[in-house]
Amino acid sequence: MSVIKPSLAKGTRDFTPVEMVKRNLIYDTIKTVFRKYGYAEIQTPSFENLSTLTGKYGDEGDKLIFKILNSGFFSDKVILNKETITEVAGNLDLYVGNKVPMRALKNENQLLNEISEKALRYDLTVPFARYVVMHQHEITLPFKRFQVQPVWRADRPQKGRYREFYQCDVDVVGSESLLNEAEFILIYNEALSKLGLKDFSIKINNRKILSGIAEIIGKPDLIIDMTVAIDKLDKIGLDGVSKELLERGFTEADLEKLRPVILLEGTNEEKLTSLKEVLAQSETGLKGVAEIEQVFEYVDSLISYGLPLVAKLELDITLARGLNYYTGCIFEVKTNEVAMGSIGGGGRYDDLTGMFGLKDLTGVGVSFGADRIYDVLEELNLFPASAEVGTKVLISNFDTEAEKYALPIVQQFRNAGISAELYPSSAKLKKQMAYADAKNIPYVILIGGDEIASGELTLKDMQSGEQKKLTVLGILELLK
Amino acid sequence: MSVIKPSLAKGTRDFTPVEMVKRNLIYDTIKTVFRKYGYAEIQTPSFENLSTLTGKYGDEGDKLIFKILNSGFFSDKVILNKETITEVAGNLDLYVGNKVPMRALKNENQLLNEISEKALRYDLTVPFARYVVMHQHEITLPFKRFQVQPVWRADRPQKGRYREFYQCDVDVVGSESLLNEAEFILIYNEALSKLGLKDFSIKINNRKILSGIAEIIGKPDLIIDMTVAIDKLDKIGLDGVSKELLERGFTEADLEKLRPVILLEGTNEEKLTSLKEVLAQSETGLKGVAEIEQVFEYVDSLISYGLPLVAKLELDITLARGLNYYTGCIFEVKTNEVAMGSIGGGGRYDDLTGMFGLKDLTGVGVSFGADRIYDVLEELNLFPASAEVGTKVLISNFDTEAEKYALPIVQQFRNAGISAELYPSSAKLKKQMAYADAKNIPYVILIGGDEIASGELTLKDMQSGEQKKLTVLGILELLK
Repeated sequence: MSVIKPSLAKGTRDFTPVEMVKRNLIYDTIKTVFRKYGYAEIQTPSFENLSTLTGKYGDEGDKLIFKILNSGFFSDKVILNKETITEVAGNLDLYVGNKVPMRALKNENQLLNEISEKALRYDLTVPFARYVVMHQHEITLPFKRFQVQPVWRADRPQKGRYREFYQCDVDVVGSESLLNEAEFILIYNEALSKLGLKDFSIKINNRKILSGIAEIIGKPDLIIDMTVAIDKLDKIGLDGVSKELLERGFTEADLEKLRPVILLEGTNEEKLTSLKEVLAQSETGLKGVAEIEQVFEYVDSLISYGLPLVAKLELDITLARGLNYYTGCIFEVKTNEVAMGSIGGGGRYDDLTGMFGLKDLTGVGVSFGADRIYDVLEELNLFPASAEVGTKVLISNFDTEAEKYALPIVQQFRNAGISAELYPSSAKLKKQMAYADAKNIPYVILIGGDEIASGELTLKDMQSGEQKKLTVLGILELLK
Repeated sequence: MSVIKPSLAKGTRDFTPVEMVKRNLIYDTIKTVFRKYGYAEIQTPSFENLSTLTGKYGDEGDKLIFKILNSGFFSDKVILNKETITEVAGNLDLYVGNKVPMRALKNENQLLNEISEKALRYDLTVPFARYVVMHQHEITLPFKRFQVQPVWRADRPQKGRYREFYQCDVDVVGSESLLNEAEFILIYNEALSKLGLKDFSIKINNRKILSGIAEIIGKPDLIIDMTVAIDKLDKIGLDGVSKELLERGFTEADLEKLRPVILLEGTNEEKLTSLKEVLAQSETGLKGVAEIEQVFEYVDSLISYGLPLVAKLELDITLARGLNYYTGCIFEVKTNEVAMGSIGGGGRYDDLTGMFGLKDLTGVGVSFGADRIYDVLEELNLFPASAEVGTKVLISNFDTEAEKYALPIVQQFRNAGISAELYPSSAKLKKQMAYADAKNIPYVILIGGDEIASGELTLKDMQSGEQKKLTVLGILELLK
């Protein structure tokens, strides 16, 4: 076997011990909040039948799904490079040695079915829909679930974009109540402020408001074009949006009506008041406004006790986020402390499970972008120093006698729930200290002849360099 | 889009909320013990370059690796079914429409390289070896890591065997000390007894003892044949083993010498004494015995404080477990309460990273079979009832007024760290109670007009059916 210099597959990452502690801090914080709000964890398999996934993410999405080769595929297939058969007529009838005609598989789907029938999860939403449909008879509605698992996309890797990354999704299906929407705002608020973020915005919009606006302008069919354009306000400004709207079939007169809505300013209350005037003639639009008002009212009641709303809650009618999918409230979360895309988002969808034949099941859910949150916390230096500590105390190993003396002691620490190590050989002390340093172990216990004789061990604080003599029980007290 | 009745990919599973709580209990227990012994978590990507994985698991293993199709594969390939080209001559020169000769890719590896260059992780060992080699300059030895992640195998699914399952591996590289081996015994002991197992065996053997035996018989080259045969003692008995040994090149005279060793009985001390006599002429064999003795001595010292050894520690010289791989101690763990294969195992290997060009790095590690442990705990009814509880208290929702009253209260519970839900709509009480039942929520708070007037809420214990009136603070006290 020749030795191969190992490398990572493109777009993937190893996570070191320090990174894992930090990642776990994010996952654990988010999961703890999910649980406190009554959400329960599920997991779905890493791969699904290809038929479960294809057609759910659009043509572009389908291309980014990682397909898994059927086992045994090689036993009955031959593959040709197309470049060698450019001469072949359209139908790809081929002739083998003795001129027997042979038809190649020529349709892409035909090909795909022949060689792959499974694919890696692309997101957590479609597997969740499948889960709900397959488990519908054992689920009691409303079904509140969260799911924290990796997903895979065959995207071109670039800074901050990986082919394997984690999604943290929380959804409830089978409840129309806007209390759910309000609780997601509190979940974002609690999880992100617990992680140390101090200035972040939860933007909210409602599909029905957008429908109302398109209706008022008299272009209900152009709602998608309208929202795609105004969604870009941040990036291309009002002029850019106007230009795009004109290109997409709106008139100057439409723009006159749209402009005040796009540029809506003031407090959420002021915006809602303006919208009620603008949308006075649209039942749908007014319903959207009423939904937002109800959500705000729920949030106010909920936060009347305890943790305040750290997040800025902003009505933003330029927010669209894959509008085709959402039917009610739409959310997006951004930090204002670091330049970074959205660190979360979601909304209400009225037909999640329709793709699998279960109609009229409403749901609402949001997602945390754990990888981006990681980058934000790292940049703002918000990970606690304790996040880098695994082992709390290392007992150094001088010689066989000291080792023998130390064996029950290291176990005594562990039994007290303190992560402890005995250096496994009597290497040079310098080496043992370097080991403690490299692992960010905050305390080292030195045991030599004096310590064995007196029963008082030397405890070294690795940060301050300070040393003191203490009994095992004294050290236990101190480290607990 | 036609509606597809959804199904799971063959050999995969969904995990429901109750299953997830139980699975997390197992993972968390094991991880907590790993951390207490100074092991730190890492994660590696779900897929690796195919070249990293192939050739590491033998021909049979290679076939079970799930390969991922290259993206963009379809843009330049055509696939033929071999059955349609049985007429083709050996070299598969094909002729296209206008008779231009065209060469098909015919070699399996050639084919594979054309369509797949990535594959799903088959175990955690090879990715760990790759990790150590790629991170060798930032790692301080000894490197103590654990890893709990799924692996995938294209095995034929059957009861208890899945295509996706979790491995929990813990390894240390760069330390020859037998303290590591002893600590793995304590890790098994602590984790499995914490999970509630009361009768389980940790079997230990040493490759050097097996080498010594083969040496004494004068058939050192037949060590593999010898161990493969005696490994089956449990299944086929002494007669079966004898028959197989004869078939594999041993003589009746060899069997005379082997039999007392295979049937070694008594306490570990008695077995070690016998082995020392049998292996008196084999330096290697005696080294193996000395290693086991040293491990036992370490275990005795470690357990002299605190948690006793619940596990039966048994020297078993018929234990082999992929002998080619291991060079020192070998472990296997079995429960004696349920008929089940091994629930853990591992050993020392002296050349883990050699496959990636980093020589002479010794390591030792063990693994927990989380899926089997799950089945054992389920069968023995060892999961605590609390493992089925997510939400601790549900506040029922009578009407708008009660809902408004309840909003700050539900938040008050959450702020106290208690998982709480307010039923999201004023559905029929029966329905709300059924929801609490289905989710195993132990307490329901009823808030009606009386409760709002008095400030004393009705708390219902769902298990006993008992109801009592308490203030919010009273309930908080009770549930904490």
